[in-house]
Amino acid sequence: MADKFMSMKNLKFTLFSRKGKYPSDTPDYLNDHTPKTIDMIFKAAAELAKKTMHPMFEEMDRNPPSLKNGQVHVHEGVKPMLETLGKDGWIAAGFPEKWDGENMPSSLLLCINFIFATANYSASVYAGLTMGAAKLILSFGSKQVQDTYIPPMLSGKWQGTMALTEPEAGTSLGDLCVEAIPIGKGQYKINGEKIFISAGDHDGVENVIHLMLARIKGAPAGAKGISLFVVPKLRPGDNGSLIENDVIVTQLFHKLGYRGAPITGLRMGEKDNCIGWLVGKEHKGLSYMFQMMNNARLEVGMGATAIATSAYHAALDYCRTRLQGRKITDPKDSIPIPIIQHPDVKRMLLFQRAVVEGSLSLILQCGMYEDILACDPANKDCHLLLEILTPVAKTYPSEMGILSTSSAIQCFGGYGYCDDFPVEQHFRDMRIHTIHEGTTGIQGLDLLGRKVVMEKGRALILLKQEMEESIKTAKHHKNLDGMAQDMAEAMTILEKTTMVLGTLAREKGVEAYLADASLYLEMFGILVIAWQWLIMADAASHALKNKNSNKKDTLFYNGKIHVADYFFSHELPKMKGLSETLTNKTKVTLDMPDDCFT
Amino acid sequence: MADKFMSMKNLKFTLFSRKGKYPSDTPDYLNDHTPKTIDMIFKAAAELAKKTMHPMFEEMDRNPPSLKNGQVHVHEGVKPMLETLGKDGWIAAGFPEKWDGENMPSSLLLCINFIFATANYSASVYAGLTMGAAKLILSFGSKQVQDTYIPPMLSGKWQGTMALTEPEAGTSLGDLCVEAIPIGKGQYKINGEKIFISAGDHDGVENVIHLMLARIKGAPAGAKGISLFVVPKLRPGDNGSLIENDVIVTQLFHKLGYRGAPITGLRMGEKDNCIGWLVGKEHKGLSYMFQMMNNARLEVGMGATAIATSAYHAALDYCRTRLQGRKITDPKDSIPIPIIQHPDVKRMLLFQRAVVEGSLSLILQCGMYEDILACDPANKDCHLLLEILTPVAKTYPSEMGILSTSSAIQCFGGYGYCDDFPVEQHFRDMRIHTIHEGTTGIQGLDLLGRKVVMEKGRALILLKQEMEESIKTAKHHKNLDGMAQDMAEAMTILEKTTMVLGTLAREKGVEAYLADASLYLEMFGILVIAWQWLIMADAASHALKNKNSNKKDTLFYNGKIHVADYFFSHELPKMKGLSETLTNKTKVTLDMPDDCFT
Repeated sequence: MADKFMSMKNLKFTLFSRKGKYPSDTPDYLNDHTPKTIDMIFKAAAELAKKTMHPMFEEMDRNPPSLKNGQVHVHEGVKPMLETLGKDGWIAAGFPEKWDGENMPSSLLLCINFIFATANYSASVYAGLTMGAAKLILSFGSKQVQDTYIPPMLSGKWQGTMALTEPEAGTSLGDLCVEAIPIGKGQYKINGEKIFISAGDHDGVENVIHLMLARIKGAPAGAKGISLFVVPKLRPGDNGSLIENDVIVTQLFHKLGYRGAPITGLRMGEKDNCIGWLVGKEHKGLSYMFQMMNNARLEVGMGATAIATSAYHAALDYCRTRLQGRKITDPKDSIPIPIIQHPDVKRMLLFQRAVVEGSLSLILQCGMYEDILACDPANKDCHLLLEILTPVAKTYPSEMGILSTSSAIQCFGGYGYCDDFPVEQHFRDMRIHTIHEGTTGIQGLDLLGRKVVMEKGRALILLKQEMEESIKTAKHHKNLDGMAQDMAEAMTILEKTTMVLGTLAREKGVEAYLADASLYLEMFGILVIAWQWLIMADAASHALKNKNSNKKDTLFYNGKIHVADYFFSHELPKMKGLSETLTNKTKVTLDMPDDCFT
Repeated sequence: MADKFMSMKNLKFTLFSRKGKYPSDTPDYLNDHTPKTIDMIFKAAAELAKKTMHPMFEEMDRNPPSLKNGQVHVHEGVKPMLETLGKDGWIAAGFPEKWDGENMPSSLLLCINFIFATANYSASVYAGLTMGAAKLILSFGSKQVQDTYIPPMLSGKWQGTMALTEPEAGTSLGDLCVEAIPIGKGQYKINGEKIFISAGDHDGVENVIHLMLARIKGAPAGAKGISLFVVPKLRPGDNGSLIENDVIVTQLFHKLGYRGAPITGLRMGEKDNCIGWLVGKEHKGLSYMFQMMNNARLEVGMGATAIATSAYHAALDYCRTRLQGRKITDPKDSIPIPIIQHPDVKRMLLFQRAVVEGSLSLILQCGMYEDILACDPANKDCHLLLEILTPVAKTYPSEMGILSTSSAIQCFGGYGYCDDFPVEQHFRDMRIHTIHEGTTGIQGLDLLGRKVVMEKGRALILLKQEMEESIKTAKHHKNLDGMAQDMAEAMTILEKTTMVLGTLAREKGVEAYLADASLYLEMFGILVIAWQWLIMADAASHALKNKNSNKKDTLFYNGKIHVADYFFSHELPKMKGLSETLTNKTKVTLDMPDDCFT
């Protein structure tokens, strides 16, 4: 297995290339964190990832969780890993000091998650889920619920989950039907079934705490009748004891990848003895969940980015060392060359790097908006920018990550198809991300149906301003003139396409407007990633002017600009075909009669 | 598991829609086969596929081959399957009567392979490999070798293989180094190692016959020093006995998918007792192999098409029955609808159908050229058309099949990621096809570096004529006017791009010309599949004029035209972006310095 699964240099470069502030400065939104403290944090995370998570990357896949006598058993390394993550403060890092946390900015938490997930995606999700669940409790739970659950969760002793999906309600959350019957004191009897619950049960922890959506008996139908509950596997009894709470594991899903983490089905209240605690107000569950969803979607994008990054580094390592063939212009009897020297192999590596580094940059852009908002919750512009970029930050890395990991396999040839190398696992681990936390179809509807039109299109206007600012800055570097021009042209394509769709909405209605929303998202994503590459090319060009750069730095910055060139010459032109499809007045995806499918 | 894994109606429609001959006629190149006999053959094949192959589709994947004491063990169903395929004449079907065959045209053999592979791709390859190996013996082997090997191979008792790849020579076959030392009577001592040999050993047969490339001691270096041998696992001794031939299985590869077939490493001559028989002349091995390679590449394309077809039918079945969500225009309290009614789900199904039916059509187009050539080997035009289309017929189904099976997973949501449904296996089974029998990179170089330029570009001119003829015919149907026009425009894009690349070759050399050959192949493939959709839309429009069509037929033909519309509105425009990239004078994939990759 390749030793290197990420580039620390690139992570720091990307983090510091936001907003015209260049490597030596620290952006304001990172609070008190200096490049030096950040360096220490990242190094510690990488050390932990390398020692604790990476060694079980394959093992966790080859020996997936098992269900025996109602208990899910996971890899024996999960328990000590969670203990360490708790003890060393990684799970609590983003929480206030009151909870022994450090109020760490979202940007840095995303970077840490990235480091962990490049080492072992499955291993990284356990703590991530706990953080998300604890955050929900912190935001909306009563003091009693907070005091009961947050400390053991942040210590790594208790697992947190997000329990949304039901057998008949996946994408369509308004149709949820797990029932909650009030029994007083903010307590409810819970009854029903959930499926696809990540880390829904396992023996690496003492207890599992489900943040569960359910419908209080008599609540309104649809999304407006859903409430949020804490439903523990074991509920706290007297004197610190823990009592079985009638939550049964009904099944363990056998998955294509992401096998190191157990995904379970759950049955609550079979013996009418499952108790849940209401979190926040009645019927507000879905809105609470969605307040956390933005960050959850960024984390999904980051997970996808991390997996593809790891695959890229494995492929790069192989392409540098594997000798095969010779250049077309070489004599036929010359010795074989490292395959990285073949242009088609270079193309595949450039593609992977363009995808993974562009994705990383976008997610850190969103992290920045989250952090600015955390300092200044009234910053409406920042909120709108985060809203419009989130579906892209979730989807681009996930969709393109499938192609990127596939391209990593291709670099290995036949070996890539075999489990002697890690890339076939990366390819499998990747495939979940276009599905969980809202499918690509849902993200498309969210972008075009809600985010583009909200507040009379203000989010799109703000994004355009951000992009224009980046173009303006980039123009200071002569070598970026072409890119800046292409970027401006691409923005026009987006604008025109959006206008045509707006007209279509008025003339033919909302269904026609949204018929190809996924493709709109795809096109939008290409533009947004081009913008990120412009930002990075700008930062790299700036850094190259520093006469003190050593040779390694110079190669890195030049490489950045080359990859940006690749993105602009090979990826950005795809917008044209997509725009043509989207502005086509015939909506074949709407018009095709169901019974014509055969 | 879905019962339906292919559409017989579509297969026959596609077979009969070639060359302006419509359903009721039988094209000349199918020899004596009438629609009625073809129907009987296909039905028998489907019956066999359903009864023998499909029931072990999952089992063969979940219980992959094992290596014990040097013997590879496969699923117990393989042996009776091969006996049946032999006994009932399926393996011999394409061979002359002398060998108890039926001289069956290539088009029909491809269709039969399609039927088998939709049921169970791994199961279908065993006999396919034997046919290919036996065909090589028939074409180039001595009478003695033919008499010894062909009958037991065609009976299904002996397995055939193609043994090309070596640890240090995958794509670069000229570097092969397995050695052959002459010992007289056309016999050679064989020494060396091979890897990635499909069906390289198994207990479903009595013997395994390797058609192996090796280098006779003292032969010239490179491709011109490679010869072809028959190297059996057990060599014929006196009185019909079989003797160990010193071929050892060194390893069994653990693969992402395609797990039902064993892929092995082999070591020949460890005890200096491995004998091979020269096939044909010395040093001609690679050219013999490549004479069979065209058909092998069509078979790879067909395998990919079959897998994606099976995934499509599973997804279609699910989308018709799974209830979830409602239309945007429906009241919120209305009951959930089958997900096939959501435009985004329709888009995914349309995409899959566009890919799989377009691919099938292209491969049958190539099958037609093979059959015309078989009747008239001097037909140079036909040969050139087959040459230029083969890299596309291998690559388009394989590359797009990855996306198509991925899209099938997406239709299932979370369930698609789990092994309760077959699509995650299809996704894994699919991924080998862009690698084996020449990677996509190699196909790109073959197309742009050899096929486009051979005989002063004559193949491209002929293809253009074929396309123009299809446009002319399609114009008889008014509903196809738009498509015909788009097709003509797309042909211009190809022509212009090819010309710009030609200029680049003269100005900047062959490396720059070929730098993005894979993208040229991608663009070329889109055009070729658009052409196939035009042919099918034409045939469907023609059939719709038949007043005797029943409702089911009408739906089918209308569906065809809708999918063609989808291809022209959603896939064809992708050519524009690709053309822009290809005609960009900066060749970033060539210029990126190796050490800038980090």
